[in-house]
Amino acid sequence: MTQPVSLVELWRGDLLESQHWGHAVVCNGAGQIVEAWGDPEAVVYPRSSAKMIQALPLVTSGAAAKYGLGPEHLALASASHSGGAIHVEAVSDWAGKLGLTEGDWCCGPQTPKDPVERKRVIRAGQKPGQFHNNCSGKHAGFLTLSQHLASGPDYTAIDHPVQQAVRAAFEEVTGEASDHIGLDGCSAPNFSTSMVGMARAMAWFATAHQRADPLSAAAVQIRSAMMAHPDLVAGEGRACTRLMRALNGKGAVKTGAEGYFVAILPEQELGVALKIADGATRAAECAIAALLVRLGALDRDDPEAQAFINAPIQNWRGLQCGVMRPAAGLLA
Amino acid sequence: MTQPVSLVELWRGDLLESQHWGHAVVCNGAGQIVEAWGDPEAVVYPRSSAKMIQALPLVTSGAAAKYGLGPEHLALASASHSGGAIHVEAVSDWAGKLGLTEGDWCCGPQTPKDPVERKRVIRAGQKPGQFHNNCSGKHAGFLTLSQHLASGPDYTAIDHPVQQAVRAAFEEVTGEASDHIGLDGCSAPNFSTSMVGMARAMAWFATAHQRADPLSAAAVQIRSAMMAHPDLVAGEGRACTRLMRALNGKGAVKTGAEGYFVAILPEQELGVALKIADGATRAAECAIAALLVRLGALDRDDPEAQAFINAPIQNWRGLQCGVMRPAAGLLA
Repeated sequence: MTQPVSLVELWRGDLLESQHWGHAVVCNGAGQIVEAWGDPEAVVYPRSSAKMIQALPLVTSGAAAKYGLGPEHLALASASHSGGAIHVEAVSDWAGKLGLTEGDWCCGPQTPKDPVERKRVIRAGQKPGQFHNNCSGKHAGFLTLSQHLASGPDYTAIDHPVQQAVRAAFEEVTGEASDHIGLDGCSAPNFSTSMVGMARAMAWFATAHQRADPLSAAAVQIRSAMMAHPDLVAGEGRACTRLMRALNGKGAVKTGAEGYFVAILPEQELGVALKIADGATRAAECAIAALLVRLGALDRDDPEAQAFINAPIQNWRGLQCGVMRPAAGLLA
Repeated sequence: MTQPVSLVELWRGDLLESQHWGHAVVCNGAGQIVEAWGDPEAVVYPRSSAKMIQALPLVTSGAAAKYGLGPEHLALASASHSGGAIHVEAVSDWAGKLGLTEGDWCCGPQTPKDPVERKRVIRAGQKPGQFHNNCSGKHAGFLTLSQHLASGPDYTAIDHPVQQAVRAAFEEVTGEASDHIGLDGCSAPNFSTSMVGMARAMAWFATAHQRADPLSAAAVQIRSAMMAHPDLVAGEGRACTRLMRALNGKGAVKTGAEGYFVAILPEQELGVALKIADGATRAAECAIAALLVRLGALDRDDPEAQAFINAPIQNWRGLQCGVMRPAAGLLA
């Protein structure tokens, strides 16, 4: 197995203090590798970077149309949101549409990342709920599909029709059988694939508008929804939201736990998958921004690009101590 | 340069999801390498793992004795505390002893890690203060020394007598000139050293009771203070506190930012320094616990050892998804 390669460096003063290694693959619409760093065959879980794939059966089944779901719902189904008021209210409305309550969700409660909502919960003496969970929109999608299929309430079980449909879609778009099934943070199954499998899937999303099949049509709907609602896919201050706003409709990006990140670039007809081997989100954000610049989707001088590829490391007094930046060879 | 080696693995189901590489060195009292992983000559900043060294001039100068500082003060001077009530009150009392106020501190305000105090601050509509900063005890030590030396208020400047004294102590116990000076999170200078330099310094602390010189006598006082007050050195639930309680007076451990960790083991007459190359604290905690077990300081079956070397990865519903554990070759 090819070892992961250095993708991100943290400098403090004139000394390289920390370093992140990983794998990254860029694929074209034919599923071929255009560029790669580290091991394209490394198999890991894409975690939440797979959410737009997990949302495909919601659309192809006809469930989304039947329940009148719009782009906001598809963005939330593909989201790792911050649990802010806009996310919680939207998922709550969606539950009402299904005639369900928060207790029907199986994602577990999570302290919201959104600072306003987090403080509000604490000040009100409340406990975080399941709608605060960053995956509550994905679960709303699962529950919608489950209701559409008239299947049982245990929608995160691997043999449940919802997860069987998700697995089929996942294996279809990655072009690989999934050999490992992990239990995700939200209790849904997460399917493994190689780095090239995931980059291929993202390139398939990027070129979906060129094809007429129902799965590709669903992919266009979902990627468009993500690009139209960057605030719902993550939240204020979050990398996905900031980078998609900067991409301005020219691409979608999505984070995943343990240092995963993907990009869907329709104009370039490319898909990107990257995994920081140590699982660090900070490095995944820096590396995906570097690849967006490298591939021409984002201008190098764009303030949001600079914020991630030339990221100041500040201390408690706000003084700059150092910088995080892509390793040589990633950016250009 | 020797590359860092795999020290910690994260498994999700039957798949290795993430991996942490790093450097670790064990030295004996003669300053010789007993065991090493990765590159013993790798030069980095030990960050807060150097706090017991930074406290040495406070004692050797006579300042600690003059101001009537006890073991609690020396533990706080060596602490990266959680900003809990016990820490804030102790530092506040210390300020009173010096006739100073929070505004004289230069560490900057930090949201407390302590969950009780964090919620209290939010509920009270307050902002975190400088006494909440994890380094406020170290800065209390600096300010005490500065007052003792009748030097100026800019005690974090590299040419200030306090920092000159710290640098001299640091270079003395590491046995190396420090070639890089970083600006730390708390705005104090942080001096670079090699992994072996830091392991040598920790072994020097571990064997300090065998020597009669004033610097060694100060080291015995400081390490004893850390072991006597694990709750002041970090806080409830924190690795330093839990591991020192488990060591039960047989050793001191200290975390540092960006994946550093050290151990002082007087019974074994050994010192340990480790750096997770990617800067991950979770991995540093796992690796230091593994080394404590390996070196005979902690029983492998001790619940606190198990909590770090066989650490369950749980999801939002509390279900176990995987495990974090030392890589083969580190534990035994």
